[in-house]
Amino acid sequence: MIRAEVVTIGNELLIGRQVDTNSSFMCAELAEIGISVVRKISVGDDVQEIYEAIDVGANKVNLKIFSGGLGPTHDDKTKEAVCRYFDSELIIDQEVLSHIEQLFARRNVTISQINQDQALVPHNASVFMNDKGTAPGLVLEKDETVFIFLPAVPYELKFLMQYRVKPYLRQKFPEMLPVRICDFLFSGIGESALFELLESQTQLFNGQHEFAFLPSPGLIRFRQTICGENEDTSEKVFNVTEKILTVTAGKYFYGRNAESVAHILQRIFTEKGLTFSVAESCTGGHIAHMITSVSGSSAWFKGGIVAYDNQVKISMLHVNENVLMQSGAVSEEVVRQMAMQCRNEFNTDYAAAVSGIAGPDGGSPEKPVGTVWIALATPDSVKTKLFHFGPSDRSANIQRASNAALMMILDEFKQ
Amino acid sequence: MIRAEVVTIGNELLIGRQVDTNSSFMCAELAEIGISVVRKISVGDDVQEIYEAIDVGANKVNLKIFSGGLGPTHDDKTKEAVCRYFDSELIIDQEVLSHIEQLFARRNVTISQINQDQALVPHNASVFMNDKGTAPGLVLEKDETVFIFLPAVPYELKFLMQYRVKPYLRQKFPEMLPVRICDFLFSGIGESALFELLESQTQLFNGQHEFAFLPSPGLIRFRQTICGENEDTSEKVFNVTEKILTVTAGKYFYGRNAESVAHILQRIFTEKGLTFSVAESCTGGHIAHMITSVSGSSAWFKGGIVAYDNQVKISMLHVNENVLMQSGAVSEEVVRQMAMQCRNEFNTDYAAAVSGIAGPDGGSPEKPVGTVWIALATPDSVKTKLFHFGPSDRSANIQRASNAALMMILDEFKQ
Repeated sequence: MIRAEVVTIGNELLIGRQVDTNSSFMCAELAEIGISVVRKISVGDDVQEIYEAIDVGANKVNLKIFSGGLGPTHDDKTKEAVCRYFDSELIIDQEVLSHIEQLFARRNVTISQINQDQALVPHNASVFMNDKGTAPGLVLEKDETVFIFLPAVPYELKFLMQYRVKPYLRQKFPEMLPVRICDFLFSGIGESALFELLESQTQLFNGQHEFAFLPSPGLIRFRQTICGENEDTSEKVFNVTEKILTVTAGKYFYGRNAESVAHILQRIFTEKGLTFSVAESCTGGHIAHMITSVSGSSAWFKGGIVAYDNQVKISMLHVNENVLMQSGAVSEEVVRQMAMQCRNEFNTDYAAAVSGIAGPDGGSPEKPVGTVWIALATPDSVKTKLFHFGPSDRSANIQRASNAALMMILDEFKQ
Repeated sequence: MIRAEVVTIGNELLIGRQVDTNSSFMCAELAEIGISVVRKISVGDDVQEIYEAIDVGANKVNLKIFSGGLGPTHDDKTKEAVCRYFDSELIIDQEVLSHIEQLFARRNVTISQINQDQALVPHNASVFMNDKGTAPGLVLEKDETVFIFLPAVPYELKFLMQYRVKPYLRQKFPEMLPVRICDFLFSGIGESALFELLESQTQLFNGQHEFAFLPSPGLIRFRQTICGENEDTSEKVFNVTEKILTVTAGKYFYGRNAESVAHILQRIFTEKGLTFSVAESCTGGHIAHMITSVSGSSAWFKGGIVAYDNQVKISMLHVNENVLMQSGAVSEEVVRQMAMQCRNEFNTDYAAAVSGIAGPDGGSPEKPVGTVWIALATPDSVKTKLFHFGPSDRSANIQRASNAALMMILDEFKQ
């Protein structure tokens, strides 16, 4: 097993606010080619901290891969730390320089000194050419450990991982075993309750394969990881797992191997040639966003209305004004009308509607924060369901309500 | 300066797919009370790896704070590692046990053994009661370093940080200096071009205060961090910085100290008593979602249409069918009509419309992936703008187009 450590560099990662998506991406890419990440580290834009991150535990892994601190501004310190650790001096790489010059010529922008300086690389490093930007990737070795340094701009990092780093690593470590992952999606049940349902299934937990529970608002991924088997064998194991899960907890099992519930819905709706639309109040466009984040969603998703204001519910969705006044926007009758009218207006086979109180304000004793009504209009009927997500934060309630709506649609297609 | 290290535990963090938002949250919370995070580490659900993460560099920081691995299932290993490192044995904490029993009684759920086991804590640990869940927080000390262990469920973690950990740390480290952060938002300019504009302003880069460039698609945060000053003094420094920025790069400067552009818009629109609506094609609800993620958005945002299908553009937004056929959905005339009709239908002062090719499919030689038309209908006119975001990924293009639309609105209100 090839063991790796991922290091991300940047003050912004340590002050909060900026979530570290680069390290997740690098982990996923490494997992795909069979490299096991045993630790992630993030440090600030500080030469000494970066130096220590290069050094720490280097003898325990085969690969250390870094992103960040290669930009052109004053707070980019990675090359300085690299030079100190690897006893290097910076020299101009002519190929990188002419790439940068071409890049600027194409954009009709005058090249400046700090841009030219991006062609400076440690003299004992190999270079990964960066077609998407100015900072090249760097590779160095020390005591049988490989060190790779990449820029932090996400699409540059993606390009370099895919076209430079992965081909390089496949050649460098030909003995790598593939890691195969299957996610089994559950909803409508908590993590510990699901564990108790599955606990007795000793085939699952006999230690031969790895399982993990990955909970998120309204959704649990039960993830199986298989290392070192070929695709056919892995597929057979995943099928056995699916059978066990269907028998023991089928009521809460919604599908497998999908990046998201929206991916599962897309598969079902396109296979059946059905269309969908959505009327959102408290979820404010998030359901439409989840669906349209999936490439190809235009084949089944016609569109949606974000009816945030009550007047919009009346004017655009023709919700009965008296009902709205009497029952309030967060009520069974209002979501029922929203779903039916949405289905009519968008001329779709199915339509969902959501109205609730996402918080932190707007709650009342009868309808506290977290109260959400969801309706689903099908070709035959309108179904409604009341949820109490509780007083957790706004963003979690929006996510939970969105997942719950998508799950209600999936329920329609369960055997 | 109190120095801390943040450690997150979970296999899911090392396989990718799961982004580590908990560590960002903990960093932000610690920064707020003046604790400087010098390193973040993530390790898997493995007793030895957790043990090493507890141990590594412990003598270099005042605080090590962990989240994860305290859940009830087989893959939660943190307490085992804690017991080994601190030479502890697990004992039942009666207060935690009765809290768990009450929690289950309130939900009318029978309590099970694995839930009861959550009341087992290391005998030499102090306990932070967790009102939002079953796993308590744990505090231990060794050689003058404080170790805090928290669960990874985000709203439980939030509760514990806010109501247990921060009050405890304020008391434990009374000498802490506050850290004050101000973000200056820029758009329409790249990171290195912005740096070159600002570079000559030596007041900014004389080393007295810390600055960082935090780029994201379509938006750069130029962040100033001040440590150890009171609020008045910090505010004066931030005002000086703002003046310098306005003079040197005012064209690209959009405001300060906002969590997001949607927050700035909300302030402007509510102050002026204006209303807004949006018609989205390629952004698919993401603009509405960005706006409605802000609590209080219902005061100015009436709603939106996700007109994903061309038929919806015609039926719901009354876009002229001939124009749509001749110019295509991604065209100046179509977004112009979408914005105007959206403003009419939703009866708002302003309305934006976006139509483009988010990718990866749907591009053509004339309109490659990344081509986006945006229109803004104001009380006086309709403005349109063409963007070429290039062939980066779908999600980045959706974000860039959403930011560009919000920036176009902000431009209306710039002096």
